[in-house]
Formats: sequence, C-alpha cells, structure tokens
Amino acid sequence: MLGHLHVAGPLRRADLTGLMGLNRSTIAALVAELAALGAVREVRPEGTQAGAGRPSLVVQPCADRVQVLAADVGVGRVSVALVGLGGVVVARRRRRVDAPSPEAVVRLLSGAVRSLLADPAAGRHVLGFGVSVPGVIRQEDGNVRFAPNLGWEDVPLGELLAERVPHLRLRVGNDADLGALAEHRRGAARGVDDVVFVAGEEGVGCGLILGGRPMLGAGGYAGELGHMTIRPDGRRCRCGARGCWETEIGAEAVRRALGRSEVLTADALGEVLRRADPDDLRSLAVVGEALGVGLANVVNLLNPTLVILGAMLAQLYPAVEEPVREALRRAVLRAPGEQVRLAVPELGADAVLLGAAELAWQDLLADPAGVLTASAGAAPPGTSAAPEAG
Amino acid sequence: MLGHLHVAGPLRRADLTGLMGLNRSTIAALVAELAALGAVREVRPEGTQAGAGRPSLVVQPCADRVQVLAADVGVGRVSVALVGLGGVVVARRRRRVDAPSPEAVVRLLSGAVRSLLADPAAGRHVLGFGVSVPGVIRQEDGNVRFAPNLGWEDVPLGELLAERVPHLRLRVGNDADLGALAEHRRGAARGVDDVVFVAGEEGVGCGLILGGRPMLGAGGYAGELGHMTIRPDGRRCRCGARGCWETEIGAEAVRRALGRSEVLTADALGEVLRRADPDDLRSLAVVGEALGVGLANVVNLLNPTLVILGAMLAQLYPAVEEPVREALRRAVLRAPGEQVRLAVPELGADAVLLGAAELAWQDLLADPAGVLTASAGAAPPGTSAAPEAG
Repeated sequence: MLGHLHVAGPLRRADLTGLMGLNRSTIAALVAELAALGAVREVRPEGTQAGAGRPSLVVQPCADRVQVLAADVGVGRVSVALVGLGGVVVARRRRRVDAPSPEAVVRLLSGAVRSLLADPAAGRHVLGFGVSVPGVIRQEDGNVRFAPNLGWEDVPLGELLAERVPHLRLRVGNDADLGALAEHRRGAARGVDDVVFVAGEEGVGCGLILGGRPMLGAGGYAGELGHMTIRPDGRRCRCGARGCWETEIGAEAVRRALGRSEVLTADALGEVLRRADPDDLRSLAVVGEALGVGLANVVNLLNPTLVILGAMLAQLYPAVEEPVREALRRAVLRAPGEQVRLAVPELGADAVLLGAAELAWQDLLADPAGVLTASAGAAPPGTSAAPEAG
Repeated sequence: MLGHLHVAGPLRRADLTGLMGLNRSTIAALVAELAALGAVREVRPEGTQAGAGRPSLVVQPCADRVQVLAADVGVGRVSVALVGLGGVVVARRRRRVDAPSPEAVVRLLSGAVRSLLADPAAGRHVLGFGVSVPGVIRQEDGNVRFAPNLGWEDVPLGELLAERVPHLRLRVGNDADLGALAEHRRGAARGVDDVVFVAGEEGVGCGLILGGRPMLGAGGYAGELGHMTIRPDGRRCRCGARGCWETEIGAEAVRRALGRSEVLTADALGEVLRRADPDDLRSLAVVGEALGVGLANVVNLLNPTLVILGAMLAQLYPAVEEPVREALRRAVLRAPGEQVRLAVPELGADAVLLGAAELAWQDLLADPAGVLTASAGAAPPGTSAAPEAG
C-alpha cells in the first residue's frame, strides 16, 4: 500500500481497494496501521464541503513526517536533499566542489546532511540515505570502482560516509541507473517497459530498464556506454581509450564546440544554448552527430521504446535535435528505429536526485512496519526525539 | 517434467522427485501419462545386471519418437534437421544456396523437409518447425524485417513457409538469439545468467540472456550490434551506414585480410586459419582488434559474465585471440572486464540449429499433453499414420 501511495500520490480508499485487490476492511486495517506509524494520514478531499454527505477520505503519504536523504554527486557540485514519502523534495542544499577528492566530497555531504537535519522542519523519521555517483559502483558496499570524471578509483565511499553519517542505512548507486529508476517510477517512462536513460555531463552513462525491470548487469556495472568507441582515432578519454562516446558528446566537447573553457552549471549552459548563434549551432552539430551515432548503437542493441536524454544532455538536445535525429536515422535499423522515441526527463534536473531517494526508499517499501518501528525506537539523527534520546 | 528431461537428458525417478519437489506417486503418474503419449520410456540403467535387486528405472526422453524440424538459414547455405526430444540431431540435410532469394530459400527448405520426413526412420510425432535467419525478425508472424546479408527486406518468410509446409506450427527467430538460447539451455552458458552470444558470419548479431532470461527488446529486435559504428569513416556497410562492426569483423573482412575472394564454409575457413602463416596472422590482427573493441563496448554496456563467439567467429577466435584480448583489455572498464570470460560454443556449429529446435519445442514444453494429443489426432506430415489418414 505504501508503495502505491509513494508512486501515485494521495489515493481514495476505494482506489486502493481496486489497485490492491483487497477488500474494504483489509484496506481500512492497513491504513490504520500506517497512520499509527505516522506514514499516512486521511484528509477530506479538496473542494468538498463540510456536511455534504459522507465524502470518501483521501489517504495521503506523509511527506512531512517520513523522509529520506538523497545526494547527487556531480563534477563540480553536490546536491543533498530531504525527500518526503511520495517523492517530494522538502529541503535541499547545493555545494560547489572545486577539487572533488573523496575526503572533500564526504565532508561536504556530511555537512549538508547536518545542516538539513538541524532544520526544525526536518522530518520525524529519516529512514535512509541514497547517494548517486557518476561512476561504476559495487552494490554491496558502495565502493566506487571507477569514476574517471571525479578522478576516483576504488574509493570506499560507502564506508567513508558511514563513519560521518552513522545511524542511516546507506546505499550508493550510479547516476544513470538512478535517473532511469526515477523517470520509470514517476517521470517520462511511467508504464514504459524498455527504457534507456542517458546521463550526460562531464561523462556519459546509461541506466537501463528492460522488460520492466532495472538491468544492472552481473556485477551491477552495466550501462557504461560512455566508453563505447565512437571514433577509434579520436581524442584520448580519461579512461585511457580513444574516441569514447563521452569525449565526443560530454560537457567538455560542448565547451570545445562553443569555444569556452569554464565549467558551466546546467542552468547556465541551458541559457548559453538558448542564445547560441548560427556559428555556435554549426559547431555543436558535430556533437549532435556523435550523440545520434551512439544512440543508434544503443537502439540497435537494446530495441527500447524510449530514450531519455538526461543531465546536461537535456539542455543540449533542443539545440542539436536535428543533427541528432539525422545521424540516428542514418545509423539505426528501420525496425527498432520505428519503435523508439527520444525525450528529456519529466523530472528535469532532479531526476538523478529523486532516483537516489528511490534507492533509499527501497527498504521502507519492502517492510514498512518493520522499518518505521525500528526507526521510532532507534531515534535516528534529525528526528525531533533525537537530542533527548541521544 | 518433460522440460527437465529435455534439458538434462535421462533421469531416474528419484532425481525427478528431487528436481520437481513432487512426491513419488505424482511422479509415477506423470511418467505413465507421458509414456502413454509416447514422449518418454523407462529403461534399465546401463551397467545394471538383470536380477540384481530392483534397480531404479531411468526415464528417457524419446528422441526417436518426439521430434521437431529445425532450420538454420545462412548466407550461401541452409541446414535443416530433425531434432529429437532432448536436443539430439536425428537426421539432417544441407543445401548450398547460390542466390538467396526468398523463393529459392523457401523451395530449398521445403524440399529438405520433405526429404527428411520421407525417411522411414522419421519420427511418429513431428511437432513444430523452428527457423533461424540472420536478420531482424518480427516475432508474431515470422516476417523478416531486414536481413542485409541475404538482401531481404520485409520478407514474409513465416507466411511463405506456411504455404509450403502446412500442418506444422512455425516459428522464426534470429540466429544469434537462438544460439544464445541453445548454449544457455545445453551448452557453454548452462547456469550462467548474463550471457552475450555473438553470431558472426557475413553479418554479426548478438543474442542476449540477461538476468537469466532472453532479452529480445520491445519488438524482438534487440541484439543488432553488428551495426554498431566502430569506424565512422570505415567501409560502407550493406545497411547503408559506414564502419559497422560487421564490416570490420565479418566473413568479408576475414577474406580481405587473407587475400581471398571465394566464400568459404566454416570448416574450410577453420582449416585455412589453422594453416595461416605469420603474414596472414598479422593481417588478421586488424580484424581481431576490431572484434576486441566491439566486445569492450558490449561488456561495458551489459556487464555479462560470459561472451560466446559463435558461427564463423568460433573458427576465427583461436587465430586472433591475442589481438582480441589486447584490444578488449585496453577499451573495457576494469570492473566489468574482471568479470567476463570469452568462450566458443560448446555445441559447435550446431548451436544456432539447436536453438531453432528449442524455438519449436516451446509449445510442447508449455503443454505436453495438449500438444501430443493434438498431434496424434491431426496426423501431421511424416508421421507413419499420415499416408493412410491423409
């Protein structure tokens, strides 16, 4: 039930009865149990008049009471947010990172977490912490095997963070996998079974939903299409190889095409691209072409019905849509080409951050009563009970 | 039960009890039912003496009585076989194809089918016909959307074959998907959850097993990695694009490297490669390198634990193993690179043909009693009852 409310938002009891195939009294008992745990409340639907018969109450996930922490670590910046049940960003902190050493990033993350939890509006129950990193992540322990654009190799991020932010169940995931997860659950890919989310910024990675399920590969390392060779005699990539997709379409390629050297935030880049002159657009066409060629490979291999261009690519795409589509059309096979649609994230720049939150929600949704009861007992940091209990 | 016997071969009743979690009397009833339908028989295990107590009887799938037809359509040749329950090739026909027009291929296939079924040793029950084509196949009706190396586009192969070979349930599949299926069920990929089968001959395609399940894509078109761009300024591919993987590693690239122009059978190529001199090997290294670069892309994207190099690539690989491994090592990311193993098919040149048979077995394994009873009643072609009944 919590899963339905988390994904769909407020629902009437009658909707829950239909969705879950349970009878009314079972639904009533479940609602009562979750309400007692503080995870849901029942409210009069908006627009109904007091006294106008007996309106069916609406069951609402308590975004203000049941929350997780989510972080999106990028090149040059980290974002940390408190996200409420139902996927609502309750509060957020953004920090610039000049030199993204693991220690600096861990310090910034734990500082932002402290700042968020110090807020008196912080939730009573903060149930977990999901962290997105643009790299190859070992699921079991949150070890970052390889994040070339951060300059990280075998960084025990899970362990380092657990020392600084104890009491919170921690999970680390790959940015593209998390973008795919969030868009599949509550964005452009709702109800779509075969989806590729391309997260492009300094690097490029793919998150895959195949046959309706996240496809992470044998070791959780799938989706590293940024290192697909597009031009064997191309530029040297940070991974060591030449002509990787991300060297041809990543943020640096975009800066090169625009003749700029400074790192731009996504918003600033969006602004620059909207004001691009015809010369800029011609230079960017080369990047668009490489994007289209790579997309054709992805579509030929995986036959998805939807490709979402995320992170910086969401800003870039409108400026290069024509060369992207033209290169894709030339290199894709007709049958899978007919089935695929290109889109940008419905969740915008928050797709990856909300995906990190989804990672943190996982345990709660699997066992709501167990997790909420344990959380109330353990008095984790940031609950209003914590100062007294600790 | 039939599924277990089909995959594992003869099993004792006690093994079946364990495998299926059913009690002895249920197993006995199932065995009796299948035996009455002619699908299994019980035999004394080899090596046991008559009168030596009561040996546990072995339940054997009847490869001589329950069979399917399978065809492997390649460039320059077609193979058609009767395959018995348990995956045994009972009889086969091989035909050369000079100009692979759809009509010529359908004529050769139906002729080979007639010849196989005319054999007095042909099975009593021929339950289906699975056909492999090196192309992009629409599952529902066996339409070949695109098979550039046959020169086919939108060929209604399913329909054409159904006219010539009526009475047989027909299914058409992609060669690489079928190679993956067969190797996963009874070859090098038994028990492996994340597998890529690369079928390389004139063209190159991939069959994917991900998370233990065949991954066919939204429309069944997944796996067309032959048209991944490896060299954007490379040779023009038959699909229209430039520098596709298959133009760099397919049979033509191999012939070019060896300075030969005639199409070689797999066996003949194997012989040529085993006798290759150092000059040949140096020329072939370029092909091996392109193979390794493409494999790195596949491994980075899908993080499989096993890549099987099938069809012509199985012959090529031993001659270019070093450049393949070197290029793969350079371009693959370390984490997924550590997990992957390269192999050739355990089922050898029959991998794709046996996969086509697996396609045909599908209906029987889903509903053994229904299919066998219907087959006995309908007197399909080639059953000993057909001449009288028809």
